[in-house]
Amino acid sequence: MEAVAGTKKILVIGAGRSSSSLIKYLLDNAEENSWLIRVGDSDLALAQEKVGSHVCGEAFEFNALDSDIRRVELAKVDLVISMLPARFHVEVTKDCIALKKDVITPSYVSAEMKALHQEAIAAGIVVMNEIGVDPGIDHMSAKHVLDQIADSGGKMKIFESFTGGLVAPNSDNNPWNYKFTWNPRNVVLAGQGGAAKFIQEGKYKYIPYNKLFRRTEVIDIDGYGKFEGYANRDSLGYRSIYGLEDIPTIYRGTLRRVGFCRAWDAFVQLGATDDSYTLEGSENMTYREFINSFLAYNPHDSVELKLKSYLKIDQDDPLWDKLEWLGIFEDIKIGLKNATPAQVLQKILEGKWSLDPSDQDMIVMWHKFVYELDDEIKEINSSMVHIGADQVYTAMSDTVGIPVAICGKLILNGTINAKGVQVPVTKDIYEPILSELQEIGIKFTETEVESPVLYA
Amino acid sequence: MEAVAGTKKILVIGAGRSSSSLIKYLLDNAEENSWLIRVGDSDLALAQEKVGSHVCGEAFEFNALDSDIRRVELAKVDLVISMLPARFHVEVTKDCIALKKDVITPSYVSAEMKALHQEAIAAGIVVMNEIGVDPGIDHMSAKHVLDQIADSGGKMKIFESFTGGLVAPNSDNNPWNYKFTWNPRNVVLAGQGGAAKFIQEGKYKYIPYNKLFRRTEVIDIDGYGKFEGYANRDSLGYRSIYGLEDIPTIYRGTLRRVGFCRAWDAFVQLGATDDSYTLEGSENMTYREFINSFLAYNPHDSVELKLKSYLKIDQDDPLWDKLEWLGIFEDIKIGLKNATPAQVLQKILEGKWSLDPSDQDMIVMWHKFVYELDDEIKEINSSMVHIGADQVYTAMSDTVGIPVAICGKLILNGTINAKGVQVPVTKDIYEPILSELQEIGIKFTETEVESPVLYA
Repeated sequence: MEAVAGTKKILVIGAGRSSSSLIKYLLDNAEENSWLIRVGDSDLALAQEKVGSHVCGEAFEFNALDSDIRRVELAKVDLVISMLPARFHVEVTKDCIALKKDVITPSYVSAEMKALHQEAIAAGIVVMNEIGVDPGIDHMSAKHVLDQIADSGGKMKIFESFTGGLVAPNSDNNPWNYKFTWNPRNVVLAGQGGAAKFIQEGKYKYIPYNKLFRRTEVIDIDGYGKFEGYANRDSLGYRSIYGLEDIPTIYRGTLRRVGFCRAWDAFVQLGATDDSYTLEGSENMTYREFINSFLAYNPHDSVELKLKSYLKIDQDDPLWDKLEWLGIFEDIKIGLKNATPAQVLQKILEGKWSLDPSDQDMIVMWHKFVYELDDEIKEINSSMVHIGADQVYTAMSDTVGIPVAICGKLILNGTINAKGVQVPVTKDIYEPILSELQEIGIKFTETEVESPVLYA
Repeated sequence: MEAVAGTKKILVIGAGRSSSSLIKYLLDNAEENSWLIRVGDSDLALAQEKVGSHVCGEAFEFNALDSDIRRVELAKVDLVISMLPARFHVEVTKDCIALKKDVITPSYVSAEMKALHQEAIAAGIVVMNEIGVDPGIDHMSAKHVLDQIADSGGKMKIFESFTGGLVAPNSDNNPWNYKFTWNPRNVVLAGQGGAAKFIQEGKYKYIPYNKLFRRTEVIDIDGYGKFEGYANRDSLGYRSIYGLEDIPTIYRGTLRRVGFCRAWDAFVQLGATDDSYTLEGSENMTYREFINSFLAYNPHDSVELKLKSYLKIDQDDPLWDKLEWLGIFEDIKIGLKNATPAQVLQKILEGKWSLDPSDQDMIVMWHKFVYELDDEIKEINSSMVHIGADQVYTAMSDTVGIPVAICGKLILNGTINAKGVQVPVTKDIYEPILSELQEIGIKFTETEVESPVLYA
């Protein structure tokens, strides 16, 4: 399409898995809004696949890490959406400041990014971050309720928030009730790198990695059944983000289906999730030998019995079925050179936890708000479940990409006027985005809990 | 003393705890050998205390980290003994190479130190390292037996080696059977920083930190009773040091009294040994609140019951007495600002595990050698127990310092002729040192085990 007068140009940097729904939304809304969507990726075929033959779209080969090439492309457009890995956003943003282009990233605001706030204001641009699903929809849906409570004069006592990327119920056909719907490496390493920290009734609480998957909380979502949540690394930082500096209890976590964490903990206890050293001779090891490398030597006993004894697993414990089903006791060659335990485990899991072509994924989010109003304790639960259409337009892709896309629209049409480095925690930003998400079907159900109690 | 013709001058850098027995040995043997012992420390009083009024000793204030001052002092002497923290040895050694002075350190050979080998040879000096207790006496006593086995035509099957710094039996009066006899911080952090690695019957084995203190091995030393050993981080590197590249089983560990490790594991499981983050408000926390910070919130249950439930500690488990005895449930203020869990735990332990003025310490070392000779399996155990005289001439100070001192004598009198960067694993070095250690009473008992078996 030749750009006509009044056409707004949007550059999407990166056409990977997380950009599918983003690009689709932008293209679907392009004609109505007079947009031209330029999709650049180092892999041209990937960009072409996402754009298809849409008249308002242009796919091109783009090395966004080359600053000269990057500046030329940024200069051409009205809005930049960076779907690059998080570490590259700061460089892109510096160019956007120089060129006075608004920019959106779904990623966490780094300290370096935060430092660009005044420069961005001076350039008259907005640098919107944390506007995917987690972070993103979690912020918006939580602040939506938190602001209502504050407006009513309520005083927050407990805020809990859980998010999980899972497999949809109709595709949920393995004993773990789990499949990889996102980066498998992050799933294997989840919870490593420091104790989980939160605060409960004014008491700081710390959970080391070796206990993380045994300190879960169970929640029930109407129509979807039970989930369990383990603590995210840092819940404390969210106090300042949400303006809850004095809240006695704040806890954020990740959701799995009930029973997952207890079984996963077997790998944690074994040391099979360790990414800090490489296994001797990993290439020629079998899955069984991998497990055996964490168990004491014995010339007679089976790997199975040694594992049961070591981790005190009862004969009839259902977690055993989960472990066996993964094939960890089989004589299958690993075939990875100089692999860490975490890399080997990931390979084993990828053979079992991969989505089938017809599988759908699911994003689940759940918030709990307990507050005091007129000397009464009140509780609101808010939940959202979103199921992906297929393996391109996944729930993950939808919930990451669509809020980014909507935000882009609202910046271009002037609904969002904020400047500087922002996250979507103010009403002017979250309200119109949540409202359109709801129309699309990504919606929260808020329910008031009857007879809530602070702590029994 | 005025140095007379023929007097050899020895510089001891550092007059701290680990230098006591070293300096005593050197002074005791100074007249006979025509030595002048110069003891330099940044704390002059400390150096003076160690030298006393001995006619062959000179204490002086010495900032060994100032390279100009250092070179002047190194130039004056015939032999340098660096008892500085390990990270400073390389700088001292570079100067010793430039000035052609022999140098001894008790510390591990770093990669940087190793790189100085050819330069040291070119300078015609020896840089002797790893000649304290562990590393040091362990190398020498192990190689003494290993070389005998090799000479007899035996083929090594299993080598295990354990060392522990403990409290002497007559001072052993607490439920942990343990007191701090060395750097408490190292004891609290022991085992952190990576999985323990060893090889057993040709199978590589890995133990993560969260299981390290539950994979102990019990040994019995005649006259001293039972000890338990947990695995050191890297046993594999010792294969090349000892020329045991093809040995199917090698395992090195640290000794404690039986029951220590299982109780210590309670702190590991809680996360109380973590040194990677600081506790919020640690200054005003009590010991009890410290323990509670690792336990789930509950408005009614006691810290004691929550701990028992969390770690599955039976009502009648003797490890409970150990925990209670430490005072961890008491309302005592910690009084440390911005402290890590490990720092708080260290403070609690220092209040209980400190040596009384009349207490003695004990070094225990035990080796197991299993080998095949003439189609027969044979086993030798070798053990050494050394008890300190008092709190200055401790077992630790003796076993670190006396081999260093003897080595110094043997270098000065020409018995040791090796040049370059060395560790004491060859007969010419270990034989005369072990022989003199034995005269002094630091001696190994080697026993042949009747009807040994490889693995039952």
